[in-house]
Amino acid sequence: MSGENWQTAITKIEPNKILVRGYRLQDLMGKVTYPQMVYLLIKGELPSENIGRMIDAILVSSVDHGVTPPSCQAAVTVASTGATLNAALASGILAINEFHGGAIEKSMRVMQEAVDLMIEEKLSIEEAARKIVRNYLDRKKKIMGYGHRVHTADPRTKKLFDLAAQYGFSGDYVKMSLAIQQAFKELGGKDLPINVDGAIGAVLREIGIPSELANAFFIMARLPGLLAHITEEKTRYRPMRRIDFTQAEYDGPAEREL
Amino acid sequence: MSGENWQTAITKIEPNKILVRGYRLQDLMGKVTYPQMVYLLIKGELPSENIGRMIDAILVSSVDHGVTPPSCQAAVTVASTGATLNAALASGILAINEFHGGAIEKSMRVMQEAVDLMIEEKLSIEEAARKIVRNYLDRKKKIMGYGHRVHTADPRTKKLFDLAAQYGFSGDYVKMSLAIQQAFKELGGKDLPINVDGAIGAVLREIGIPSELANAFFIMARLPGLLAHITEEKTRYRPMRRIDFTQAEYDGPAEREL
Amino acid sequence: MSGENWQTAITKIEPNKILVRGYRLQDLMGKVTYPQMVYLLIKGELPSENIGRMIDAILVSSVDHGVTPPSCQAAVTVASTGATLNAALASGILAINEFHGGAIEKSMRVMQEAVDLMIEEKLSIEEAARKIVRNYLDRKKKIMGYGHRVHTADPRTKKLFDLAAQYGFSGDYVKMSLAIQQAFKELGGKDLPINVDGAIGAVLREIGIPSELANAFFIMARLPGLLAHITEEKTRYRPMRRIDFTQAEYDGPAEREL
Amino acid sequence: MSGENWQTAITKIEPNKILVRGYRLQDLMGKVTYPQMVYLLIKGELPSENIGRMIDAILVSSVDHGVTPPSCQAAVTVASTGATLNAALASGILAINEFHGGAIEKSMRVMQEAVDLMIEEKLSIEEAARKIVRNYLDRKKKIMGYGHRVHTADPRTKKLFDLAAQYGFSGDYVKMSLAIQQAFKELGGKDLPINVDGAIGAVLREIGIPSELANAFFIMARLPGLLAHITEEKTRYRPMRRIDFTQAEYDGPAEREL
Repeated sequence: MSGENWQTAITKIEPNKILVRGYRLQDLMGKVTYPQMVYLLIKGELPSENIGRMIDAILVSSVDHGVTPPSCQAAVTVASTGATLNAALASGILAINEFHGGAIEKSMRVMQEAVDLMIEEKLSIEEAARKIVRNYLDRKKKIMGYGHRVHTADPRTKKLFDLAAQYGFSGDYVKMSLAIQQAFKELGGKDLPINVDGAIGAVLREIGIPSELANAFFIMARLPGLLAHITEEKTRYRPMRRIDFTQAEYDGPAEREL
Repeated sequence: MSGENWQTAITKIEPNKILVRGYRLQDLMGKVTYPQMVYLLIKGELPSENIGRMIDAILVSSVDHGVTPPSCQAAVTVASTGATLNAALASGILAINEFHGGAIEKSMRVMQEAVDLMIEEKLSIEEAARKIVRNYLDRKKKIMGYGHRVHTADPRTKKLFDLAAQYGFSGDYVKMSLAIQQAFKELGGKDLPINVDGAIGAVLREIGIPSELANAFFIMARLPGLLAHITEEKTRYRPMRRIDFTQAEYDGPAEREL
Repeated sequence: MSGENWQTAITKIEPNKILVRGYRLQDLMGKVTYPQMVYLLIKGELPSENIGRMIDAILVSSVDHGVTPPSCQAAVTVASTGATLNAALASGILAINEFHGGAIEKSMRVMQEAVDLMIEEKLSIEEAARKIVRNYLDRKKKIMGYGHRVHTADPRTKKLFDLAAQYGFSGDYVKMSLAIQQAFKELGGKDLPINVDGAIGAVLREIGIPSELANAFFIMARLPGLLAHITEEKTRYRPMRRIDFTQAEYDGPAEREL
Repeated sequence: MSGENWQTAITKIEPNKILVRGYRLQDLMGKVTYPQMVYLLIKGELPSENIGRMIDAILVSSVDHGVTPPSCQAAVTVASTGATLNAALASGILAINEFHGGAIEKSMRVMQEAVDLMIEEKLSIEEAARKIVRNYLDRKKKIMGYGHRVHTADPRTKKLFDLAAQYGFSGDYVKMSLAIQQAFKELGGKDLPINVDGAIGAVLREIGIPSELANAFFIMARLPGLLAHITEEKTRYRPMRRIDFTQAEYDGPAEREL
């Protein structure tokens, strides 16, 4: 029984030499940021500094959302049983799925559909947005990436779009995501603002990330948040306490200026 | 049946307001880097820019090591069965344990032991290092963080220490890790260079990260690498192929300059 | 922030009383077998003894398949890093997906499609089978549950069907699975015998298990096998050895009679 | 880079032949029960029918404990995000650790310690029990396997011991577990009855299962329960509902006779 030969184009390991996508790892350290490395590993080529900054801002935007997301609850629940750190993190990651984090990928697919329609049928952005929204409303299908169960004007959305403008990524996908919001208001009579998932989706498309990988960006972003909650659970509380996530009260620092 | 009240000091969520450790998330985006956020979330306070740079370099240093590490093999094996992205990533993370990635934490404990001994017994760094090494050699115990099964002069180690010097983190822990290497040579007759785990451990101690969290830094670092291998598996190969990791051949870009 | 009220119909816990689907757990112990409990928990009612025996035989049929399945490889790889038992088992389970174990569910869907067609169009089993196979061949789609990469006459298949006959479960689904095999031969010119996945699928449908749960039966079945491999790895081998699954040699007991 | 040769003594796969510990799998099906297979896989030899019955009763005893255990909460939380069945099960398993399920292993270690002491120092069971309890009380250490946060007279414990007597497994370990309970009462003034974990531990030792594998027995036992809760979540509730485990109300069948 012999295995098939196979090729890998990611990393070459030789004694005292580590080449990631052809670059010596020690050359990358200190020069290329971790967010840029994410892009290099996935896409095979180094991104511009602004792509790196954009990815950095995306990761920061989703770094944590308190104790209510299922990923946090799964991670903390597992941590409370005496699990190792990696097992608690793995549980949190297993909770990042279609209905938690998954709106990013879904919103990217709608934007792609709308931009493709715009190009194929030679429509304006607004025309394509209206056609797509009309189509979804007629089929009573939900367009993901709009509205939020807590936030009506998500501060992360505005900031992401501001940064996208600053870094040069306010292209057709970002415009389309706003045009869809406008078409929603006109055709559906609903004022559903783009949420952070929709904004991340638009910007990830702008920098060329395939929608299939959206989930991974959310996972990378949320990892430090999960780590903080797991650490808090392990250091502040006794194991196997009865956890009622609806009772959590914030006792951290008051609002402060950067 | 009622849950206990509990407090959380990490993130406060209100409608249209997300405070991470007291800071408005939109203020952090674009100003504070993801590596700095890791520190803020864990420690509760913003780090200096240089701490951020140091964490960034640590994450980049461990971003990938080809197809042979068990975390990659577990992730790729699971990916080959048609698993979702998060399940494949979770499997990879479940392989980061005492014997894979765990040397960072172990090396931190030895360094702490040595630095504590130095302070308590008012020894020089060299004296403390020799005492610790003598003690380990006598008990035939292994000091983790020295030697590597592939690399004799790991290029990541030198670069990490260079950057640590540049950013101002060449304190007692870094010095102790080098003194232990020297003591090993003198007392044990073995020229075991500090490996990347030992170097990361020394630098993490310099910036005040507790050893219990070392594993999480390795996990965060390795995530983009695992993602790249999973994506390669899913896009280049058919599901359920027979995978022989010993047969993998590199067919990516040739060595190139940054 | 208050949680929604919710109902659960599975188990009622009171001091000194545990009711599973209404039965006192101590009454079930020693009287009802574990395979019967699987059915009770899922379906809400106690199964006949023969259903219990059928589930037992299904679980035994899939209990292990050596070191080559990805679930074993993921579990052993993770175990070799010093993982806890549950983490290694979880990794193995994460590898049981569409392309590993998933053929059971897929074959159940085809059988259901064929049996539904038989009823709707008032066809004989053979006619329905031919119509379904013709349809799949025309669309060049694969019917799962037939053929195996190692076994041409899988001994588990024959035995499962024998036991199904003995226990009274050779109904339409089992007959249909055989009729599809025959139709394959006639229309496609291929002699693809039902494999163990197809046989399990047929029998699970006979006893009323929904296809969505097929994966869980495979997971329950394989758990003791994964446990044995993990234990072997932890007790016979040193951590982080280089594992080449293509090199594994069997050194257990020679073939023996029961 | 070549892998090491390695041996495996569990299962031999040849075309049309599957030997588990030397037995043809088709011979085992229908003759040997799943609980017996668990033993065969772990220990390498077929157990008696009574060992099979004992394992069966152990598995049934721990099959479910409602919605409050962390394993259930982790599994249901992950299921609510749209996770696949295996990911939700894996999360539940990752919650079975030192403080949830782990008391079985810990109680086995204490019993072993006590039985070893009895043999070494030629004590009676009662003398050994008192010496061990005295020792634990003096060191203010907890002996696991006694007392329960819900049940004062756990009905599973009595039934397990009754079945153990019936099947012939009321040996030194079972006697010691009861002697420790008695010694607790006399020396510590606490009436802490053996709980189900302690009872399972005693019986597992009686049938020769190593304490390191106790966790796996709990995982196998609990799997059908987790499956039922996951299925209930997926079929009765909308995704991403707010789950408050403290609010769960039982609406299943009323108490009924077997």
